[in-house]
Amino acid sequence: MVPAARAAALTEPPIPKRALMRDPLLLTPGPATTDIAVKAAMLRDWGSWDDDFRAVTAEIRRRLRAILGPAGTDYECVPMQGSGSFVVEAMLGTLVPPDGKALVLMNGAYGKRITRTLQVMGRPPVVLDKGDYLPPTPAEVDTLLAADPAITHVVVVHCETSSGILNPVEAIARVVAGHGRRLLIDAMSSFGALDLDPARIPFDAVVASANKCLEGVPGFGWALVRRDVLEAAAGNAHSLSLDLADQWRHMEATGQWRFTPPTHVVVALRAALDAYEAEGGLPARGARYEANRAALVEAMAGIGIRPFLEPDVMSPIIVTFRCPDDPAFDFPAFYEAVKRRGFVLYPGKLTEAETFRVGCIGQVWPADMRAAVAAVAEACAEMGVSLP
Amino acid sequence: MVPAARAAALTEPPIPKRALMRDPLLLTPGPATTDIAVKAAMLRDWGSWDDDFRAVTAEIRRRLRAILGPAGTDYECVPMQGSGSFVVEAMLGTLVPPDGKALVLMNGAYGKRITRTLQVMGRPPVVLDKGDYLPPTPAEVDTLLAADPAITHVVVVHCETSSGILNPVEAIARVVAGHGRRLLIDAMSSFGALDLDPARIPFDAVVASANKCLEGVPGFGWALVRRDVLEAAAGNAHSLSLDLADQWRHMEATGQWRFTPPTHVVVALRAALDAYEAEGGLPARGARYEANRAALVEAMAGIGIRPFLEPDVMSPIIVTFRCPDDPAFDFPAFYEAVKRRGFVLYPGKLTEAETFRVGCIGQVWPADMRAAVAAVAEACAEMGVSLP
Repeated sequence: MVPAARAAALTEPPIPKRALMRDPLLLTPGPATTDIAVKAAMLRDWGSWDDDFRAVTAEIRRRLRAILGPAGTDYECVPMQGSGSFVVEAMLGTLVPPDGKALVLMNGAYGKRITRTLQVMGRPPVVLDKGDYLPPTPAEVDTLLAADPAITHVVVVHCETSSGILNPVEAIARVVAGHGRRLLIDAMSSFGALDLDPARIPFDAVVASANKCLEGVPGFGWALVRRDVLEAAAGNAHSLSLDLADQWRHMEATGQWRFTPPTHVVVALRAALDAYEAEGGLPARGARYEANRAALVEAMAGIGIRPFLEPDVMSPIIVTFRCPDDPAFDFPAFYEAVKRRGFVLYPGKLTEAETFRVGCIGQVWPADMRAAVAAVAEACAEMGVSLP
Repeated sequence: MVPAARAAALTEPPIPKRALMRDPLLLTPGPATTDIAVKAAMLRDWGSWDDDFRAVTAEIRRRLRAILGPAGTDYECVPMQGSGSFVVEAMLGTLVPPDGKALVLMNGAYGKRITRTLQVMGRPPVVLDKGDYLPPTPAEVDTLLAADPAITHVVVVHCETSSGILNPVEAIARVVAGHGRRLLIDAMSSFGALDLDPARIPFDAVVASANKCLEGVPGFGWALVRRDVLEAAAGNAHSLSLDLADQWRHMEATGQWRFTPPTHVVVALRAALDAYEAEGGLPARGARYEANRAALVEAMAGIGIRPFLEPDVMSPIIVTFRCPDDPAFDFPAFYEAVKRRGFVLYPGKLTEAETFRVGCIGQVWPADMRAAVAAVAEACAEMGVSLP
């Protein structure tokens, strides 16, 4: 899957790309560490009304859609200002009509946020709550859809970064399509690294953002929506700003964003897409993150720190680890000790166990993951935490 | 008002600050041309959860509130992701409750957008429509408020960039307060350059964004809201993403943004605030823009191009000019000809006359305005447009 030359490149980070970096590596679910070329693209100012910027917008819409592969031609890319959660809300508000009913497959913070978003907009969903770390099963979805014909849409989070779990979207998509219902995917933290080919995974819309696996900087996201679905969605939205159908109609008519785009961030994504395509696109990006995860989990095992999830549901995006079982372990002190050594980790988000998380995305390579684990071991030693 | 040394600096641009610039100057209502230090601040990646970034957030909230002056201590600064219109929608959705009734003072595209935003969220407003270029008068507002006690809020655009008109917010604020109603101000394109002292201008909230008079880059904005108003606003919002009260509560509790902030853009605003304060803050920034406008209008008069508005309502933010009355004049060709000479102008937005606009904000000085007018004259000559 990864050519030999590229596989070799996976073992060591290309240091020149970090020329200006004195900051810690961000081992988080994003905003992640980006290529210096991505940041350098922000050194120019752009007129948002100008033809030059319209061309950038058209280009990134085309290139983002191309990531879906050949079956992506039925989809339209609609960029939207704000964080990823803004784009999720835009998808829900535009595509679940006021008389629709959504089933949310919830197993973490992002599923919870989707539920709350629908509640706030007055379109309360049905919820399948799997707790903190179990995937929703196709059989459960089948049962719920069979029992409630009023459900029009199913909403799933591809990679739920609360635990790092990878949900079985392909099997779920088949069940949803079998019932003639519509699937909306929050692929915020997986898009561009994990395959979402609409030819195998039928969905109405998927949303993602600039600062995750495409390694841009935060400030906007996008929805990829079936054209027929978008055409039928006019007038659904609960919000003018977050109306994807209106944003799309305006962009098609004028080439412009309706409201001021984050010009520098948009141009940074173009540079990030250059780097993405140069690396080899989705297969190579996914392979690098897989290699990062493998190096991370192996090195952590070497110092006796175990992942929380079973390997079969563990994503290559972010990994949850159990904290060392020693009263001397204190997460804030641990975080600072690891940060002083050049690595920013991420706190845990689970209720049932003491955990912390380590992201595998951004401009990081397996050698970085091993160095981070060495820093973790040093930090534990400094704190007097004994590792098994 | 402007010290002598600073007044001298107003006449010529500080060329070194543009070291990396080969792009045209943006003479638009923003995104405008920014200082290279503002863009260079984006050359680092930040963990959005990290203490270092929380400190940046706390700092910009404090510095933005300080722009209101001593009476600003009753207000809280709530940053919000997205474009300025997202922040306007957040203010309306959070502060005009579902059973409230807003009066919108409309004289251009931004007043229209406020009206449409309220309609989409199911809180249709009363509208005073003054057309394209007339200010709402305090007497008109007085009459409307006296006639309709159900009106709870009045919404006004400080500088309506459709025409460049400056609306009489101080006089309107007195009328609104006199009726015991609440004032919401869209100061998107004026905040930081034109005074909005709450001691003289009573208001509940004002919104603005990073890429206007503070000369940051686009990607977020903020609301400055009276603390008591914010405390009473929980549960009003039509949207989770655009809920200012929820954003505030979370930020106060954790120091973090609820959802991923545009980290690079936020840090760029900090650099922009450094430049703003070094320049002398609001009085100096406002004086530079006034000087820009004076140089622009005078130089345009010299080639026979007249502003559309009367001087008493003309803002120092953006000026609308009548297009030369010659059949050879064609705006797209004119725009390109001026752009080739290094200046990006802005199209007109009025229905009743052929106009174009020239912004006075961003890293531009009177010498730039004169050079832009020379480019306008050359472009007209190139097109065979005769000027009087």
